[in-house]
This record gives sequence, structure tokens and C-alpha cells, in this order.
Amino acid sequence: MSTPGKNSGEFGIIEKYFAPLSKNIETTFGLKDDAALLDIPAGQQLVLTKDALVAGTHFFADDPADLVARKLLRTNLSDLAAMGAKPLGYLLATAWNAETNEKYIEAFAQGLRRDQEEFEITLLGGDTVKTTGPMSFSLTAIGTVKAGQALRRNGARVGDRLFVTGTLGDSALGLKVKKGHLGELSEDHKEYLVDRYLLPGPRIEAGQLLSGYASACLDISDGLLADLGHLITESGVSAVINPSSLPLSDAAKAALKDENADFSSILSGGDDYELLFSVPQHKVEAMLEKLRFTNLQLTEIGRNESNSGIFLAGEDGELTEVPAQGWTHF
Amino acid sequence: MSTPGKNSGEFGIIEKYFAPLSKNIETTFGLKDDAALLDIPAGQQLVLTKDALVAGTHFFADDPADLVARKLLRTNLSDLAAMGAKPLGYLLATAWNAETNEKYIEAFAQGLRRDQEEFEITLLGGDTVKTTGPMSFSLTAIGTVKAGQALRRNGARVGDRLFVTGTLGDSALGLKVKKGHLGELSEDHKEYLVDRYLLPGPRIEAGQLLSGYASACLDISDGLLADLGHLITESGVSAVINPSSLPLSDAAKAALKDENADFSSILSGGDDYELLFSVPQHKVEAMLEKLRFTNLQLTEIGRNESNSGIFLAGEDGELTEVPAQGWTHF
Repeated sequence: MSTPGKNSGEFGIIEKYFAPLSKNIETTFGLKDDAALLDIPAGQQLVLTKDALVAGTHFFADDPADLVARKLLRTNLSDLAAMGAKPLGYLLATAWNAETNEKYIEAFAQGLRRDQEEFEITLLGGDTVKTTGPMSFSLTAIGTVKAGQALRRNGARVGDRLFVTGTLGDSALGLKVKKGHLGELSEDHKEYLVDRYLLPGPRIEAGQLLSGYASACLDISDGLLADLGHLITESGVSAVINPSSLPLSDAAKAALKDENADFSSILSGGDDYELLFSVPQHKVEAMLEKLRFTNLQLTEIGRNESNSGIFLAGEDGELTEVPAQGWTHF
Repeated sequence: MSTPGKNSGEFGIIEKYFAPLSKNIETTFGLKDDAALLDIPAGQQLVLTKDALVAGTHFFADDPADLVARKLLRTNLSDLAAMGAKPLGYLLATAWNAETNEKYIEAFAQGLRRDQEEFEITLLGGDTVKTTGPMSFSLTAIGTVKAGQALRRNGARVGDRLFVTGTLGDSALGLKVKKGHLGELSEDHKEYLVDRYLLPGPRIEAGQLLSGYASACLDISDGLLADLGHLITESGVSAVINPSSLPLSDAAKAALKDENADFSSILSGGDDYELLFSVPQHKVEAMLEKLRFTNLQLTEIGRNESNSGIFLAGEDGELTEVPAQGWTHF
């Protein structure tokens, strides 16, 4: 038991590995002051989100430390993307345990450094503590969006068309590969799926481009059906999804041939961090035009209808209602 | 092992106990969207800080849940106070374990509600996860300060006079009481000291009033000597402290008569969350005038000199150098 003071070891870790990550802007004071200062440009609103990860629950303790750090950062950036925000920076709390060696911490910080460069953000502050339990991390990501332009979950209307970015189910299938459940798959496909599990790509560019077009938007973290459930519930509409239209990677297509994988990985697998969004009919053409010269993969997967519920459209046009269910294992 | 998706139990906890804490402003969306939106008034800078607490390290698992929550919030608000900031809101990550019952969570949320009212802030977002280890919490507090007016640690100059708010050592002595080390003390004094340990009072009003007067300021979380060490190191000065001037509560004075307590609790005890600040000689009178009609207890404890180090002045005027050392137990 001690007070929340920092011992010299803790200061050493912060000074050596984390202070250098805060050097992008002067007002983080190298993490040495009580708090960081941040300027917010006029006409912008602040967007704030926070996620926590616990070893054994959200990641494997033997996952590469740099990828754990980057996934933690990216899951938060994905929340900013879903609001159409531009990321600015983040605060980080790390709880290391007795088994955490300095090499792990160094790799963790190295992962953060790499993604800071990729996403042009900076560490703004944080805390480092020890725990007798599993390692755990929490991260607060901060971004900005033009005032009044944030993408919300609750704006979908009857007749809006539903789209997703990227491909679905890769991450859930990657987790199966990691668990040794998809042994028949080629090494290339295994690697692709595991990479998608370990290192999701937050759709930051897409989120910003969709501002002004999408009537509702969120990121698929809990699974397509679960997150679609959030969108339709908040918006007060139903959704009809065309299962054959769902975008699959080649690796996912191959994995679905394995008896240990089925289409529920696509419908309900979490952790993809693609964007799911609705666009009013009259804005679809302009949106597609706006996104034409990006590398974004965009797929129309269904539409919003009246009332409530999620329905899968069969090849014969028949509708089957499905529960809005994602990964609920805990 | 699961993805970071939330199960229905987790949604239930958020909906029942935490969503109501976000209702102060519309743009937190009842914690239902991917992130919260926040307006920052023009001419203000954002101030950001983040602290983490782990059961068994930073608090006792059987401390009252409402006080744990309030202390977590207040330690962060204290960091904002030390920058002269006005608090706006906070994001919270909670990791509950199998032993956490709903009554604990309810009391925890109730504690937050009470301090939200006291400090006029709101919950802006967060995350709720489970851990197999000790309960742990992390909190990101956000405030604003007039652009360019933030109090820093590094502005103390030779000749500046050093002050503290409130009284010192109460919290460290309160921890001794909790551990049963100060059995001789009266019940009133015990209660006073334990209260100071469990529920520090962040000096938010003082921080804001000191803007424009203090040349350097921080909150005493690691102990007077340790935090004074930060101030003089960052500022490039030394400090001479008059030990007999240090402000003590009646309870602390009584506790010091016990053989199990000594003056190191006053010099090095952490967790007091009073402000320690330096004021240039020519601004002292104006500052005292400004604070005259507040209830703030202010005590001059020493001055900044040239070179480096912390020196205690004896009654004969002799100076003894002491190490800048706080609670380093971990």
C-alpha cells in the first residue's frame, strides 16, 4: 500500500519511454507538469472517447507488445473515425505487473511511436501504475470535428441505404486462427486474418469524408448485427441486409469452407473496426463521387425500413428477422 | 477471451449507473454514441490529466466505494487545480472483478454524482471492463484555462516566496490511523485524519485565483519534499523551508505526540493535494489582497534561492540539506 506517488522506477519508465512520445507539441511539457495544455482551433468541437483493455480478456498476454499498444490506440481512433473526427492526441494509463519486463514496455512504446507517426497524433499525458493482476491499459483519445458536423448513430431514416467500409469477419476469423481452429487454411490466409485481428485499421479518412453525407455512422466493434442494432435502435428504424452482398476478403472466403467457421463470424464477429453507415438516397451519388479517388473499399449491404428489427433478405426475397447479437462472451 | 465488445450485463451497468451521470450536457449522448462532443469556449486552452488507481496499491478494497470514486475524481481535479484550470468533465474506465457486487458499483456511481454536483462537472464517456485482478480505475479529467494563463511548475525564480494551501501531513497520518498505528489519538482526531486521507479537497478555487500571481504551482501528491523537488528542478532554483512554519491541523499536532508518527509524515507524506506555489516578491501583497475574502488557508513556508537543493532552516538559522523524497514505497 502506498499513496499514488510515483517512485523513481516509475519516473524512469515515463522519462525513458513515454516522455519522448509527448515531444510533438510543447504544451505536453514532456509529461512533467500536472496536466497537458491543448489548443482547440476556433469553430471546432472536441471529440472524446476512452477504451480499456485487460490482458486475458481483450488481448493475450503473449501478443506482441507493440501490436497490443497499436490496437489499443486504433480501437480508440476508430471511435473518433465513427464520429467523423480528426485525431489530435491521447492520454494513456498503463498498469504493469511483476511479470512485465522492460523489453515489453519498450516494444509497447515503440508501437505507440509508430502509430503516432502514421496518424499524426501525440501523447498528451497519462499515468503508470503497478498491479498484482493482469496488465491493463486505458486510453483516452481526443479529436476535433467541425462544429455541428459530427456523425451520430441516431440519424438513419426510412429509405436510407446502408454501407460498410472494407471487409467483414476477418478479425473474428483471425482469432479462430490464433486459437488453432482453422488448421486447413493456407499460411498466407492465416497471416492475413491474424493481422486483421491484431492490427485493425481505423477508418479515419472515411469518417471525415462521410461528414455531410452519412445520416448515421458507427464503427463495427461488437459485430455487424450488434452494431447495426445500435444504429437502428437509436434511429428508430429497421434494417434489411442482403447477406450475399457482405464484403469478404479472399482469406475469409477460404476460411468459410472450413467446418470450424461459419457465416456467424461475418454477421456477429467483433473487432473489425470498419465503419457502418446509412446514406439518404438523394446523397448516395454525391458521396460515391466524393470517395471515387480514395482507396476506400465501400459496399452497399442493405437499407433502412420502417418499424424495428434486423432482417436478412434471402435469394427469393424472403425476409428473416435475426437478433441483433454480437460477441457477448465475457 | 473475447473481443472488446460489451455484453448485455456491461450495457446494463452503464445504462443504469453511469449514463445518468452524463446527462448534464446533451453532447455526451447518454454514453450511447462512439464518443462525446464538447464545446470549448474561444480564448480557452484545454487542460488534460489522467490518473489510475489500483485496489491494494492506491486504495483498500474495503474502502467505501463512494469515497474511492470521489478520491479518484478529486486527485485528477487537483491536477487541474494545480494548472489554474476550471474543470469541465471527465472520462472514466472501470475494471470490476468477480467480487465486485452491484451495491459497490451503485455506491461508486453515487460518489461520482455527489462530486459532479460539488464541482459542476459531468461524465463525458468511458469504458467498463472486467478483470481477473484487483479492481482498477482510470480517469481523464478535462478543464479549461484562459489561453496563456496556465500555472506551470517551472517558473519559480530566485527570491520568490513559497506558500502552501491548507495543512500538511494529514493524509499520511490518516493512513497510519487506518493501519491502527495511532491508537492513542482521540476518535475525533482519528476521524479527521482518515477523512483527509479518504477525501482530499482539490484546491480548484485557489488554483484559479493564483493565475497571474504564482510563478510556479503544483499539487502535493507525492509529499512536500518530493513535489518541492519537482518545482525547484523544473525551475532551476533551490528552496529554503522553515519547518516550524509548516501548517499543521490540530489532529496532526496531536498525532505527532505519538511515538508511531514523526515529522517525516509532514515533510514526505503524500496524498494531501494541497497546492504548493511560488510567488514573486512584488506580487505577494496583491495576491494576499485577492485571496483575502476567500476561506483559503494560506501559509508562507520558505523561499527560493539560487543553485539547487532543498534546505531546512533550523531555529538558529543553520541550513540542512534534505533529499527531495516522498513516498516511494510501491
